[in-house]
Amino acid sequence: MARAVRLIQGLTDLPLVIDSSIIEVLDAGLAAYQGKALVNSVTAEDDRLAAILPLVKRHGAAVIGLPNDEEEIPEEPRRRVELARKLIDVATGTYGIGVEDIVIDPLAMPIGADTGHAIRTLETIALLREEFGVNMTFGASNVSFGMPDRHAIGAGFLPMAMSHGLTSAIMDARSPQIVRAVKAADLLLDRDPWGASWIAAHRAAQAAAAQAAAAQAAAAQAGT
Amino acid sequence: MARAVRLIQGLTDLPLVIDSSIIEVLDAGLAAYQGKALVNSVTAEDDRLAAILPLVKRHGAAVIGLPNDEEEIPEEPRRRVELARKLIDVATGTYGIGVEDIVIDPLAMPIGADTGHAIRTLETIALLREEFGVNMTFGASNVSFGMPDRHAIGAGFLPMAMSHGLTSAIMDARSPQIVRAVKAADLLLDRDPWGASWIAAHRAAQAAAAQAAAAQAAAAQAGT
Repeated sequence: MARAVRLIQGLTDLPLVIDSSIIEVLDAGLAAYQGKALVNSVTAEDDRLAAILPLVKRHGAAVIGLPNDEEEIPEEPRRRVELARKLIDVATGTYGIGVEDIVIDPLAMPIGADTGHAIRTLETIALLREEFGVNMTFGASNVSFGMPDRHAIGAGFLPMAMSHGLTSAIMDARSPQIVRAVKAADLLLDRDPWGASWIAAHRAAQAAAAQAAAAQAAAAQAGT
Repeated sequence: MARAVRLIQGLTDLPLVIDSSIIEVLDAGLAAYQGKALVNSVTAEDDRLAAILPLVKRHGAAVIGLPNDEEEIPEEPRRRVELARKLIDVATGTYGIGVEDIVIDPLAMPIGADTGHAIRTLETIALLREEFGVNMTFGASNVSFGMPDRHAIGAGFLPMAMSHGLTSAIMDARSPQIVRAVKAADLLLDRDPWGASWIAAHRAAQAAAAQAAAAQAAAAQAGT
């Protein structure tokens, strides 16, 4: 993990998420990390909180909190909010972690298993925003697991979730469809002043298309 | 209008929206119409309510209500809800129109003019659902007026609006991108039992692609 962190930080300035279920591995990664890392993740289980939160505090990291515990991954949005409250209370109260360094995962589960899952996620997001005003993230592709046209489902779900209060996502940034949906949602939710980013992306796509057409025309001419 | 209504009803069984600002034209269209028409539209202006709602009642139609009046197209969601309340009270109380026959337009205005417009529309939708549980519609393309990549903006906005309570839209049903976004939102909001409609649309698209590929291969073979 320490080698991986050093290698990746040598290649990019983007902030990294460090993910391991093994405490020693997390610790090694955080120790090697330059800057503020995000730890994925801690559940509301007492032993996990006690093992992971001290590391988060010591290394000045942020942490993704999952509102499930020993007993259950709760279905009910209100129960998820209770477990998020426990997570936030322990992290801030016992370990002195700032609430701005806690990112709650509202839990997105596959609609292929239960078509009511996405609604419960949206309700959880709205409640978390109302109760705590906290940052959130989820695995955007979970919801479409096992269904066809997954990117189209994600492209519908992300704007919905953002409009209820989701502030970030674990998502496939290589999918133009998903990226465009998020940019459209930013524009619609007044997070793109003057639409400048939307218009710049459109112009870049136009320029790339014109360049590709010119290259194709040149190749065709060379071929004749 | 009467000729247009008869002509179109001879071509399709879909229900029609009758739109005119001239009362006599609306009356002629409603008189010629077979079935339950939807009238577009009535504002919360006293003289428009008094002119249009009796027609709606007499012909057993439904009506789209716009929450603006003589003085303003209000910016504030709460003011829009007040005007919607006036519309609903007059339609149900004075004219005996059923609340299920009133479709409120939460007003979608171009983000190109003010990037805060879409948020106000979403807030209005949520308030209208909470206060009245009423059906709603809006012009889905208004929001993207003057911006590039309008269908991508609409494909983000419709799922958002649906997740807050929008129940229908005046939209371009010829745009595959918009139609797919609405179908994805139906799936995510648990209005597509077992995902049957989503999966059927995927299979139909696959079959059409296979057929097109086969036709192309046959044409290529014929050309050699």
